[in-house]
Amino acid sequence: MGRLVMKFGGTSVADIERIRNVARHVEREVKAGNHVAVVVSAMAGTTNQLVEWCRQAAAVHDAREYDAIVSTGEQITAGLLAIVLQDMGIPARSWAGWQIPIETDGVHGAARMTHINGAEIVKRMEQGQVAVITGFQGIGPDKRVSTLGRGGSDTSAVAVAAALEAACDIYTDVDGVYTADPRIVTAAQKLDRISYEEMLEQASLGAKVLQTRSVELAMVYKVPLQVRSSFEPPDSPNQNKPDGTGPGTIVCDEDKIVEQHVVSGIAYSRDEAKVSIRRVKDQPGVSAAIFGPLAEADISVDMIVQNLSHDGAFTDITFTLARKDLRKAIEVINAMKSKVGFDDVVHSADVAKISVVGIGMRSHAGVAAKMFKSLADKGINIQAITTSEIKVSVLIDEAYTELAVRALHQAYGLDKK
Amino acid sequence: MGRLVMKFGGTSVADIERIRNVARHVEREVKAGNHVAVVVSAMAGTTNQLVEWCRQAAAVHDAREYDAIVSTGEQITAGLLAIVLQDMGIPARSWAGWQIPIETDGVHGAARMTHINGAEIVKRMEQGQVAVITGFQGIGPDKRVSTLGRGGSDTSAVAVAAALEAACDIYTDVDGVYTADPRIVTAAQKLDRISYEEMLEQASLGAKVLQTRSVELAMVYKVPLQVRSSFEPPDSPNQNKPDGTGPGTIVCDEDKIVEQHVVSGIAYSRDEAKVSIRRVKDQPGVSAAIFGPLAEADISVDMIVQNLSHDGAFTDITFTLARKDLRKAIEVINAMKSKVGFDDVVHSADVAKISVVGIGMRSHAGVAAKMFKSLADKGINIQAITTSEIKVSVLIDEAYTELAVRALHQAYGLDKK
Repeated sequence: MGRLVMKFGGTSVADIERIRNVARHVEREVKAGNHVAVVVSAMAGTTNQLVEWCRQAAAVHDAREYDAIVSTGEQITAGLLAIVLQDMGIPARSWAGWQIPIETDGVHGAARMTHINGAEIVKRMEQGQVAVITGFQGIGPDKRVSTLGRGGSDTSAVAVAAALEAACDIYTDVDGVYTADPRIVTAAQKLDRISYEEMLEQASLGAKVLQTRSVELAMVYKVPLQVRSSFEPPDSPNQNKPDGTGPGTIVCDEDKIVEQHVVSGIAYSRDEAKVSIRRVKDQPGVSAAIFGPLAEADISVDMIVQNLSHDGAFTDITFTLARKDLRKAIEVINAMKSKVGFDDVVHSADVAKISVVGIGMRSHAGVAAKMFKSLADKGINIQAITTSEIKVSVLIDEAYTELAVRALHQAYGLDKK
Repeated sequence: MGRLVMKFGGTSVADIERIRNVARHVEREVKAGNHVAVVVSAMAGTTNQLVEWCRQAAAVHDAREYDAIVSTGEQITAGLLAIVLQDMGIPARSWAGWQIPIETDGVHGAARMTHINGAEIVKRMEQGQVAVITGFQGIGPDKRVSTLGRGGSDTSAVAVAAALEAACDIYTDVDGVYTADPRIVTAAQKLDRISYEEMLEQASLGAKVLQTRSVELAMVYKVPLQVRSSFEPPDSPNQNKPDGTGPGTIVCDEDKIVEQHVVSGIAYSRDEAKVSIRRVKDQPGVSAAIFGPLAEADISVDMIVQNLSHDGAFTDITFTLARKDLRKAIEVINAMKSKVGFDDVVHSADVAKISVVGIGMRSHAGVAAKMFKSLADKGINIQAITTSEIKVSVLIDEAYTELAVRALHQAYGLDKK
């Protein structure tokens, strides 16, 4: 019992029957004595239709008008869910972002929330009324609707939960966070709990369960987060476990995780590309001369490897970046050739990044060494390495992705017993 | 040159190509030096889809949620038209009712506007920015979106024009107001001008060009109104006539109509039904006893005929009402039988109301007499008569509708020369 924010994405509210299913999930939590707010996305397909109309209207279009149009998708879902809940005898009311208000910085199409006034919502929740809130949107200083950009509804839900001092359940099409992608590793196990830090590494490394920004926000505001399935029947006995672990995966502070693993998961990302600049002059300032213009072109660089200089005058610099930025990066680098001075630039998009994540690494040595040995045993060459406190990542040939993930999953003892 | 509100209905904005056509109409008026605001309906079909979703969600549903859902239709059109205008190089901005704000009394699904703050819109119009405004909606004292009910976009447009001290052009699928329905009378002529009073009678009598409420509002606030076609090509030479009469029909004060006709048009309505209560006691208070309960049941009664009492004790009372209310009216009357006392009640839905409308009637006698004679010459029996200062209406057998309209159109010299 307490305050609870429940978030449902587009496929969970795709039609009236799916919305009725969502309402039954809400009913269960209301009957369990919770004060509930629901954050909803647009019905699957609706946003695409609205975006397509914008595109037909003009190839390049004003972000303010795009926001005014696209934000109606969530407003429709919120109203429909409120109607269905009322029809089931549960008091409910829909709220658009501008009504609460959810204030944003007003950057249209990619706004960040700045403040949420939860007073009216809390008052009504305490009177037993469910608040159905539009995800993905708020109102900016220009008094116009601004949307939060891709995946924004997860972030909306966590921000609303923070403002209401509530827990947050994210309903999705998977039933939790796994030790590896179950489509690759059949022996992958669902985690009962994972720390915010580990979830952040997983999210940013390509395990597309939660949007990175939503996890950051949950960590900062200490919002207890749960990832769970909207496809599990609302009245399944699995929904409320007696031990309080929940049917999904709880994302929380690490001190709330009793049984800690050294490694909690193996992540991978195929959205990578590698660029090598050969025979660059090895002198102070050369890195700044290369990476400054890339940053100005809004290209995020991930791993950077600089080889030792053989003759004391030249070196090779290799770095990785998102595959979608590759073409632009090559243009930027070629444009700097005369100024920086190098022989040539080579690139490859046939690479993948494999990562081992776990808060236990902080107190356990040998995690990286075990990773390198496991990959070597399978004949997989490592092209670059990067590490953080709770993560080791390597760049490998993309063709070895599945093999590497499976080998590491087994090596760290994560296979299901 | 001046301030102009242009209103486009659902069929005029049915898809992106139609919206582009609307934008070209707007462009023409901007280039003519006007400061323009546009009021739009939802794309044809969109409102029906939204209403259908509401119905699927629950047969009976909260009007507040219905309003939140259905009002998104106009918000989408407003944004799309703003994008198309910008793409044509015309500065434009969309406005939802809540943003302006257009304040209403908050009666959800059937709200009336109470106040419009046009200051920000006027400021931007004077800077050359076209304001694209959602029709059909505003914001109530409960700070929620409220819709105005059927046909509300015409009324929105006139109210916005009044607030901006602008003229108002209503673009529709006909090119003006005719002396009779052109589908019935091929010789019907388009009127250059018609007075507010005549238009009100036409609108309320079934000539479905403008919504009654919008004409009332235009009359009260002296908004110069024009009915014109959105299907006439935007660049047609017919669009801006040198004599300033406009391509459509101008609805205005009668003192602005130079060449006044005695009769300006013949209207008809088939949405009628007739009820006769036979052998009612002819004594004071009996009319109140009958029509009081009907009014309480929200049934509007139109014509009332009470026959002379033959024996001084009993009379017959006949009245007309909207056909859709007939069944309910019969129930109400049967329920009062023991209290009022009468023999029986008979009813008929096979009736039509034919009306002759014209401000010239005030100063010309014999208009009614000519009507009765023309109908008698064709063998058409008159079942009831009602008159106002500028209108004579008769109830006839529905089968004679076309014959009566054509005969009267010719009798009053309205046939095209």
